[in-house]
Amino acid sequence: MDFELNEDQQAFIDTAKQFSEAELSPFAAQWDRDHHFPVDVIKKAGELGFCSLYTPEDAGGLGLSRLDSSIVFEQLAMGCTTTTAMLTIHNMATWMIASWGSEQVRNEFMDSLVSGESIASYCLTEPGNGSDAANLRSTAKQDGDDFVLNGAKVFISGAGSTQVLVVMARTGEAGPNGISAFVVPADTKGISYGKAEEKMGWNAQPTRMVSFDDVRINKAYLLGSLGQGFKFAMQGLDGGRINIATCSIGTAQQALNTATAYMQDRQQFGKPLASFQALQFKLADMATELVAARQLVRLAASKIDIKHRDRSTYCAMAKRFATDVGFDVCNQALQIHGGYGYIKEYPLERHVRDVRVHQILEGTNEIMRVIIARRLLSDMSEIV
Amino acid sequence: MDFELNEDQQAFIDTAKQFSEAELSPFAAQWDRDHHFPVDVIKKAGELGFCSLYTPEDAGGLGLSRLDSSIVFEQLAMGCTTTTAMLTIHNMATWMIASWGSEQVRNEFMDSLVSGESIASYCLTEPGNGSDAANLRSTAKQDGDDFVLNGAKVFISGAGSTQVLVVMARTGEAGPNGISAFVVPADTKGISYGKAEEKMGWNAQPTRMVSFDDVRINKAYLLGSLGQGFKFAMQGLDGGRINIATCSIGTAQQALNTATAYMQDRQQFGKPLASFQALQFKLADMATELVAARQLVRLAASKIDIKHRDRSTYCAMAKRFATDVGFDVCNQALQIHGGYGYIKEYPLERHVRDVRVHQILEGTNEIMRVIIARRLLSDMSEIV
Amino acid sequence: MDFELNEDQQAFIDTAKQFSEAELSPFAAQWDRDHHFPVDVIKKAGELGFCSLYTPEDAGGLGLSRLDSSIVFEQLAMGCTTTTAMLTIHNMATWMIASWGSEQVRNEFMDSLVSGESIASYCLTEPGNGSDAANLRSTAKQDGDDFVLNGAKVFISGAGSTQVLVVMARTGEAGPNGISAFVVPADTKGISYGKAEEKMGWNAQPTRMVSFDDVRINKAYLLGSLGQGFKFAMQGLDGGRINIATCSIGTAQQALNTATAYMQDRQQFGKPLASFQALQFKLADMATELVAARQLVRLAASKIDIKHRDRSTYCAMAKRFATDVGFDVCNQALQIHGGYGYIKEYPLERHVRDVRVHQILEGTNEIMRVIIARRLLSDMSEIV
Amino acid sequence: MDFELNEDQQAFIDTAKQFSEAELSPFAAQWDRDHHFPVDVIKKAGELGFCSLYTPEDAGGLGLSRLDSSIVFEQLAMGCTTTTAMLTIHNMATWMIASWGSEQVRNEFMDSLVSGESIASYCLTEPGNGSDAANLRSTAKQDGDDFVLNGAKVFISGAGSTQVLVVMARTGEAGPNGISAFVVPADTKGISYGKAEEKMGWNAQPTRMVSFDDVRINKAYLLGSLGQGFKFAMQGLDGGRINIATCSIGTAQQALNTATAYMQDRQQFGKPLASFQALQFKLADMATELVAARQLVRLAASKIDIKHRDRSTYCAMAKRFATDVGFDVCNQALQIHGGYGYIKEYPLERHVRDVRVHQILEGTNEIMRVIIARRLLSDMSEIV
Repeated sequence: MDFELNEDQQAFIDTAKQFSEAELSPFAAQWDRDHHFPVDVIKKAGELGFCSLYTPEDAGGLGLSRLDSSIVFEQLAMGCTTTTAMLTIHNMATWMIASWGSEQVRNEFMDSLVSGESIASYCLTEPGNGSDAANLRSTAKQDGDDFVLNGAKVFISGAGSTQVLVVMARTGEAGPNGISAFVVPADTKGISYGKAEEKMGWNAQPTRMVSFDDVRINKAYLLGSLGQGFKFAMQGLDGGRINIATCSIGTAQQALNTATAYMQDRQQFGKPLASFQALQFKLADMATELVAARQLVRLAASKIDIKHRDRSTYCAMAKRFATDVGFDVCNQALQIHGGYGYIKEYPLERHVRDVRVHQILEGTNEIMRVIIARRLLSDMSEIV
Repeated sequence: MDFELNEDQQAFIDTAKQFSEAELSPFAAQWDRDHHFPVDVIKKAGELGFCSLYTPEDAGGLGLSRLDSSIVFEQLAMGCTTTTAMLTIHNMATWMIASWGSEQVRNEFMDSLVSGESIASYCLTEPGNGSDAANLRSTAKQDGDDFVLNGAKVFISGAGSTQVLVVMARTGEAGPNGISAFVVPADTKGISYGKAEEKMGWNAQPTRMVSFDDVRINKAYLLGSLGQGFKFAMQGLDGGRINIATCSIGTAQQALNTATAYMQDRQQFGKPLASFQALQFKLADMATELVAARQLVRLAASKIDIKHRDRSTYCAMAKRFATDVGFDVCNQALQIHGGYGYIKEYPLERHVRDVRVHQILEGTNEIMRVIIARRLLSDMSEIV
Repeated sequence: MDFELNEDQQAFIDTAKQFSEAELSPFAAQWDRDHHFPVDVIKKAGELGFCSLYTPEDAGGLGLSRLDSSIVFEQLAMGCTTTTAMLTIHNMATWMIASWGSEQVRNEFMDSLVSGESIASYCLTEPGNGSDAANLRSTAKQDGDDFVLNGAKVFISGAGSTQVLVVMARTGEAGPNGISAFVVPADTKGISYGKAEEKMGWNAQPTRMVSFDDVRINKAYLLGSLGQGFKFAMQGLDGGRINIATCSIGTAQQALNTATAYMQDRQQFGKPLASFQALQFKLADMATELVAARQLVRLAASKIDIKHRDRSTYCAMAKRFATDVGFDVCNQALQIHGGYGYIKEYPLERHVRDVRVHQILEGTNEIMRVIIARRLLSDMSEIV
Repeated sequence: MDFELNEDQQAFIDTAKQFSEAELSPFAAQWDRDHHFPVDVIKKAGELGFCSLYTPEDAGGLGLSRLDSSIVFEQLAMGCTTTTAMLTIHNMATWMIASWGSEQVRNEFMDSLVSGESIASYCLTEPGNGSDAANLRSTAKQDGDDFVLNGAKVFISGAGSTQVLVVMARTGEAGPNGISAFVVPADTKGISYGKAEEKMGWNAQPTRMVSFDDVRINKAYLLGSLGQGFKFAMQGLDGGRINIATCSIGTAQQALNTATAYMQDRQQFGKPLASFQALQFKLADMATELVAARQLVRLAASKIDIKHRDRSTYCAMAKRFATDVGFDVCNQALQIHGGYGYIKEYPLERHVRDVRVHQILEGTNEIMRVIIARRLLSDMSEIV
């Protein structure tokens, strides 16, 4: 066991931190206010490899481990939660296309996805089946050399402003084995986009419904083979949960740093806030929970990397714990700021709004508990 | 002891509920989105007496107890948290003016305050002394028959759109005994208003800084006598804490109702959410905490009514507990809604944003703990 | 609404407090250590009416309301949790016998139960059906003028040292409607008692299994009529839950008082513990939660008194909340005492051990949530 | 970074697990009941090296890292919390003597300490200065070639049944720099032992006050040089905190395993407890918190091993978090067992009683927060 960063990891952090502080942090509040999707900055992120962190090197990616990718994303999330979350979705979709796309698909899409010139959205969730992916109802019917897609997807991050969609649709029987995955150019005929949802946070990316009305794509756009879609989705989710958990960790660290500095500056009753023991204790608990959460996220990421048989359980644990801790830390940091925490001149209320959705996305934290309990009760071996 | 509503109280509830459902609830989301301050609706509220619930009858108010007022405000808050919170501030200021205003002041202001044609803002907090009211630095210097006010107030609800200000300023020595209270027409020369703060919530009322630059008012506008301002502020705070706690209770009840209905409607994995035991337990805990919080608020309100010597302690307890429970209930209701809880099409995220500030306002919940602990440790008699 | 004690209630408190401080408090630690069941003290309690607080006056009891009874029990629990809990069980059984016993039964048992010369145990729970009373398997078969009881009951408080048993047994069909209630002299032939269970706490009363092997009793010992047992049990439980919740409140108040005094005495780093803000805040939260819990208990007790249709829901809420708060307050009071909290020279660790079982007894707090949620989801009217 | 056990670590676990299951687990309940100090079993532990896990090899120990030692202790704690805790204290004292003892001291004591024939107690805490070690008042006055010790120590684990004492006493100025450390044979003239404290738990080891009345020891028994005692104590505490945190982790894992198995066996309402979703969620949260806590403990242990400049902060975090989680997990496991959790026939109530003291020992969890906050506020670099 070894808990220290190696030289490469330290270098990744340095690069990511520099980018985060220069390109994300100064603009995050404004993007939130203006509901601006910073595609140009995502392109800059692509130049540094941040659009394809764990995409295999043979497909143009950096080929990093999930652990290393988490270390990078954490730094980025310190600068802008929402943009980093979008980047992680793009990374997941790009990795899926690289991993299971045909030669044709890789040739057509990988260059622009890796460079960040194209951005990818991930289309899994449907109206009415939020947490129950195995029962999705969108269809892809084979018709000659084509598949014809019909159905609707909701809460799709980036939709309407992205160039590529990875879409899960039913090609066969009911249940998980009848689902296949496709890559679909976002401007294909028959695709329409709903209005941008008005959200509590995550305002630096649009979220829209996507409707597929006889959308015809060539069969080469099938990822893997027929019926593998749900398996890909589940693999994607393990990583997706680490990613979103990481976005909570990074944001919470930023909020903790802000609150720590504020406590040293701000005077009340003639003394700095830092001198009040009850606030000191609050700060101590925030930091402790956050260090524990980071460890759990890194542990789970490494379990994906070594293909541990319980990796899904670890990822569910990490997602549940880190997104809950992330919210609490941001929320406490807001409280430490008093009235200033509630206004947009300070970043705290934005942090709270942004990380709130992490407790819901990629499987709600309730679903995480279902996953964890199922494993605990089906197999008496310990999760350590 | 008697825990049941009497006939009058039930009638107050019916009237308030009707108003809340007709005039507040249908518009609250839009007011939040548009940052609209519904002065016309406040006027309608005035017609029903809601602008002067506990203002003495001889000054034109309804002369209700604090307990009865809380029962009314709770119903209103179910319709719109923010408007009700503004109404409670107006009620407090109106009660102050009625209680300690000179004949001249009462003649000049009471009619329009009671009818809701004028709205009053309360100016206590200053930049840099959020929780430390005794050390405020605004000054009111006597000059002939006038006082001349200088200084700045921050986080003033309604400021810029209200007609009357109740202002705390220093007229004498340092500390609490040097503070006096004034009523000031909002358009008096020398008063200027800052930009509307961009806030996490409470968007249906503007919040602004108010600057006083040689603002000259007649000495008749002094409330009570010189040096009584801090005492008035402290009395105001007891009631203000009950009011804000009530706004949390009402909003949380609304969120609980919404979540209960949603659980019965929404299907996941082929069953209504209501059939999942873990969600049932969450709902049970939300309801239990909320009933406990409401009881504590009513207990504390009645302690003001009977002038119990520990009323400030009870009010601090009620404010701390009810605003924490209120936030948690709203936040859990959001979670029960999953992704739909996060978008503005549903009211949950607004409830969360609106009640969040109640944990900060009227003395942060940390200050509440200071007040409670001081009492517990200074006097060995039990608080029961 | 009225939240103040009336003169009678204040008088009850004074009497109970005096008894508690003279007869319970000085001996509680020793009874715990020696596993001593203080039957003589229960007899003294009987002299003051504490053995039949809410037994109807026509049966010799004080005929108090459940609310007034709770006010008395709270004072007693401050002196000894376990003895008071046993007293509440005795009160419940005595009330059942008085309410539904035949003339013969009342003549035979009431005098000694009211005076505390006889003590009653309540026999509901069976091995393997802890929370599922409707499925109990003990039987009472009619045989001429007798009933013949067979079966086993577990976790019976006082068993082996009490004179009277109230026993639930199946006289008919499966399910709740086949259950009847009996009063059974504890030394009837065929009744045998298991060894005294070694428990975490509640050591001042024995807990035993009770086995019924062809126990023959006259049909006059049936309470009410055939098949009413479950209904009686459920009515008993509402009150039983208030009682046990009250025992938690009283104990927690005692623990809070002890911790408050300790904080003023005990020095660390050259200052009294009372001067450390983080401990002050802990104390403030303990007191706040406790006041809220007491209110909820009293509210629920009053709902029994007025036969409110939702009284079972309120009782479940009160039991869940007050026993959880009671445990937390005692546990925090232990923590405030540091190492001294962990040793038996101080009462804190005993308080923690004693109240711990209240979260389990009379329906676990999980069952309380089932009850509350069922009501919330079956009827959209609010619980306020 | 690497989160997997290496082969050596897996072998340590196997050996420790075997010992734990054969020599500790079957007897732990009985030792608790009989207040039996199993010195013979500690000797057997010595045979496997468990009495000197991180004592340097040149002094006869195994020379393991703190991380590896934690991995071993965790397995032992699964069998008996209290005996393992005593073993960790012995290990710490043995390591101190090996690290800073003179040649003469090492020759005299190490063999028997390593083999477990002698057991060592650690004498730091004094009456009235629980958490404030720097102000201890015991004295060691130099008198020729001897030191003469006077004073009293409280809460000394093993005292009266151990052979060796490591004693902190004041040899110089007030404050931390005037403290020195000594090794003292437990039967030296002038040492007397108080009665065994009656405790909530930790009953398999005696806890006594130790009084020093002109206790004369040769100056060779000084550890290190004059004035270094506080530094040694602080170094000892870092490791001691990891040890006690580990005892919580191991016990909690055992409680979790017991509860998981119970949920599969125990039927309620015709279904196994395992089928109730609310209990599943509880189990999932217990497991998640526990995995996070274990990670934090191992992280902190590794920080000692690499002499990280923030190791004391990490150790404080790990101690605070793991002992809180440990208590909560044991307490929830008790709750899952219902009434059976409360009786001594099952191990749960013992687990709760045993781990409770870990939140107090080795610096209370409040002191941990002081340590963590001090670091956060004195140095803006992040703790990650």
